[in-house]
Amino acid sequence: MEVIKDVQEMRRWSISFRQNKGSVGFVPTMGFLHEGHLSLMKAARERCDALVVSIFVNPTQFGPNEDLSQYPRDLERDLTLTRGVAADIVFFPDASQMYPPGFQTYVQVEELSQGLCGADRPTHFRGVATVVAKLFNQVLPDQAFFGEKDYQQLAVIKRMAKDLDMSVEVIGCPIVREPDGLAMSSRNVYLTTQGRKAALCLNRSIRKAQELVRSGNRQSSQILREVIKIIENEPLLQLIYAEIRHPDSLESLEQIVPRGVLLLAARVEKTRLIDNGYLPE
Amino acid sequence: MEVIKDVQEMRRWSISFRQNKGSVGFVPTMGFLHEGHLSLMKAARERCDALVVSIFVNPTQFGPNEDLSQYPRDLERDLTLTRGVAADIVFFPDASQMYPPGFQTYVQVEELSQGLCGADRPTHFRGVATVVAKLFNQVLPDQAFFGEKDYQQLAVIKRMAKDLDMSVEVIGCPIVREPDGLAMSSRNVYLTTQGRKAALCLNRSIRKAQELVRSGNRQSSQILREVIKIIENEPLLQLIYAEIRHPDSLESLEQIVPRGVLLLAARVEKTRLIDNGYLPE
Repeated sequence: MEVIKDVQEMRRWSISFRQNKGSVGFVPTMGFLHEGHLSLMKAARERCDALVVSIFVNPTQFGPNEDLSQYPRDLERDLTLTRGVAADIVFFPDASQMYPPGFQTYVQVEELSQGLCGADRPTHFRGVATVVAKLFNQVLPDQAFFGEKDYQQLAVIKRMAKDLDMSVEVIGCPIVREPDGLAMSSRNVYLTTQGRKAALCLNRSIRKAQELVRSGNRQSSQILREVIKIIENEPLLQLIYAEIRHPDSLESLEQIVPRGVLLLAARVEKTRLIDNGYLPE
Repeated sequence: MEVIKDVQEMRRWSISFRQNKGSVGFVPTMGFLHEGHLSLMKAARERCDALVVSIFVNPTQFGPNEDLSQYPRDLERDLTLTRGVAADIVFFPDASQMYPPGFQTYVQVEELSQGLCGADRPTHFRGVATVVAKLFNQVLPDQAFFGEKDYQQLAVIKRMAKDLDMSVEVIGCPIVREPDGLAMSSRNVYLTTQGRKAALCLNRSIRKAQELVRSGNRQSSQILREVIKIIENEPLLQLIYAEIRHPDSLESLEQIVPRGVLLLAARVEKTRLIDNGYLPE
């Protein structure tokens, strides 16, 4: 496994690999890797000839009062984990190379960036789309793998790649959960034992919603009422949103026909957590 | 020469050419070609192994009250001209393939898109940057050629390519003028004989500015006063802006040290014309 820090060197490596050896699979991350990231790497490893993992805590996707400076980092541990899944390259660019003086170009996916997490993080998806566009042009992957936990992010990136005719296939992979059901997230380390226990109600409310749909209830408003009841019963949680949307367009659904996705965000102690689940046909 | 209308076919052609034969030079146009466009094609022809010319009147760079529907079009004549410079491919995509339903992603180059033409065309450069980003991803050129007549556009595209790490070299080529000095533009056909004669004062005022700088005057305000005097003397012209800017950053310059560029826009009859010239060291 090789660590590349220079953008030009990264591009040269990819061009050469693609010309001579085969396909490049790419997993962009902000580091502090967990089983969720590793599942993306394993998917890429299976489907592509090379695996490139980027680690870059992207400043442009954090709002002014968010946790950029506190975001957990542990490069040594990350390198051990990427070695464990036989990554070929860890791409670890420097912020000064990503955003040199004079930088001023942003990619905006308009409708999909609004609402849900975009409502209280107004520049977040612009920052995500911009850094992913840059990383795609630096790493030149055939396929790129993103987790479904960040559901709106995945929708934004798929739409961007399609709208701007990027020659990369964007692949979503299922949420990986802790044994107790909590969706894996680098931010879970912020939680106290009590907060962490309280956070489980997110997954519990998703399973309740799925049960209701399976038993024939297709009214979003009724299902959301049950979901909200479970979350509001937990004093340590503050609900940010609970919505049922179309799985691709993310349009609001009054009726879950044929499918939908339940999207949740809540604050637990000072930590913003998100989770989601498909509502079955 | 081959005409390609399909985006996927265009991409396949370029991938294959670059793998097997050599470099691809690209000249994006809105058609109704003139000597200015042909000079770009000749530059591309000299520097690259293949020449791809796109013809696409891009709706997203026109404002709601601009001349999209009236914009001059003549595909047969354009094909004759591109054959004349031995283009390999004319890429002629359809608006419904460029902007399918649900399209919502835009590329914005922030500071450089403001002021000058951006002042009265607030979404113009967003439309330009977006379509050029798409065309780059469709045509996959090694080098792309743009005229310096659209000076702010060239600055926006250079910045976009750099900021988003696009693997294409953006090359600016000098303005081509009619024998009487009028900068070539597809919109010149809108002018009456009188309007056309009046428009010559743009180039005349640029030459006056260059003379003043050559004779030692480096004060932008003084030079602009002379420029504006010449243009305001012409009753058929309505000045939109006259500014002296840094050639790369487009920042306003009080002193032309070491170099500057004089940028002009004016309305002649109903036609918006632009012109510019470097102010020498």
